[in-house]
Amino acid sequence: MHISPGISRRAMLAGSIITGISSSIPKNALGNPTSSSRKVNLRSGMTVLFQGDSITDAGRQNRQKPKPNDQNSMGNGYACMAASSLLTQKPDLQLSIYNRGISGNKVHQLDARWQSDCLDHKPDILSILIGVNDIWHGLKGKYDGTVQRYENDYRGLISRTRKALPNVQLVICEPFVLRCGAVTEKWFPEFERYRASARKVADEQGSLFVPFHEMFEQAIQFAPPHHWAKDGVHPTPYGAALMADHWLQAVRG
Amino acid sequence: MHISPGISRRAMLAGSIITGISSSIPKNALGNPTSSSRKVNLRSGMTVLFQGDSITDAGRQNRQKPKPNDQNSMGNGYACMAASSLLTQKPDLQLSIYNRGISGNKVHQLDARWQSDCLDHKPDILSILIGVNDIWHGLKGKYDGTVQRYENDYRGLISRTRKALPNVQLVICEPFVLRCGAVTEKWFPEFERYRASARKVADEQGSLFVPFHEMFEQAIQFAPPHHWAKDGVHPTPYGAALMADHWLQAVRG
Repeated sequence: MHISPGISRRAMLAGSIITGISSSIPKNALGNPTSSSRKVNLRSGMTVLFQGDSITDAGRQNRQKPKPNDQNSMGNGYACMAASSLLTQKPDLQLSIYNRGISGNKVHQLDARWQSDCLDHKPDILSILIGVNDIWHGLKGKYDGTVQRYENDYRGLISRTRKALPNVQLVICEPFVLRCGAVTEKWFPEFERYRASARKVADEQGSLFVPFHEMFEQAIQFAPPHHWAKDGVHPTPYGAALMADHWLQAVRG
Repeated sequence: MHISPGISRRAMLAGSIITGISSSIPKNALGNPTSSSRKVNLRSGMTVLFQGDSITDAGRQNRQKPKPNDQNSMGNGYACMAASSLLTQKPDLQLSIYNRGISGNKVHQLDARWQSDCLDHKPDILSILIGVNDIWHGLKGKYDGTVQRYENDYRGLISRTRKALPNVQLVICEPFVLRCGAVTEKWFPEFERYRASARKVADEQGSLFVPFHEMFEQAIQFAPPHHWAKDGVHPTPYGAALMADHWLQAVRG
């Protein structure tokens, strides 16, 4: 596999979205600045919270009494890797970093546990990655949700969060899949609609957006899909490391 | 494990060394600026070469006909992870990234294969991580080198490189160990001298320096040594991901 020059323009644009270095500030349909103009300010003493499903959970331990800045409580995924980088690069900031991802969650299940698992933590920076189960459980016939329900539930969750925590800085991560393992052609084009909804909610709600699916579309030029996620959904450590790097680049600005 | 605020000052200084954001430029004994003032300019079309031992090699395939920007040719270590981040973050740069690390190498073995495995590639950015075998093979009684030989050989290798490639941008990585697995107390304090020699060569030769050992001394506040390297020498994917992140932060500046 080889990175070809021909794909560079699209990814360059993606790069400008996550690093926030776009010189012009595009507007969305509502006239709000889109995520390309957003920045996160990482300041001393802040609390950072990762939320999501199994990709965020990633086998975390100490579930009853989780501790901040503790690998056992953070699992083995991108959240753990991003946390270890922040804590070793910027120990002077004395951040408190938590992970509350739970395997199998869809967006409405985040909402059901949001008070105790998010709002009560009073995060200064809240990162959310949710969506793959909203479509996957539907494809398996275990859930009757639609992309419109996903978008509406997500919008409601963020509105609720902004109301309770007016100063929270949001990082909304794009749901992603790799075309291997459990991910067959029947996921498409429906999956594209879920991705688009996540970006739409991020734009409307003034959130930084980390385009993980676009990132993996680039990454498959370097290594095949199963290198990044054997089943197409759950990242290998290599997929998680790439996610952590792009997340950090977005948040560091 | 918990990151305590008390360790922050030292690591903050380490952070300034690798990111090159120190406001004052310290001088070494020769009056040259130390690595804290160094930067690497990453420009379009550049060739990046990773050199070293098994930590860099990390099981790379396609050894007879290695290709640039190809995960099979790059192995599964920090070099591969750093490459995948650079290629997906900055595809517009059209970098050509190679890995020529070989398991078991000491610095004099790099020298023996330097013409074909380094100079002939004409790298614009050359990253070297070497040293753990120079001490380890001695501890095993398989080698009679000393720290002075390591430092002299390393200095000679870099001088030779600068003569052949006057514009090469150097990244010298600190040898590191974790106190677990094969790494017992008998490694110390000798190992500290090898680390110091690598830093001395970097400072003398105008190289960026990435303090991996300092980084892992921070990291063990977050997770125990075996999380980062089961045998104390060869990083797990989590250790490799942390190395890639610190390497990228140093090179991106």
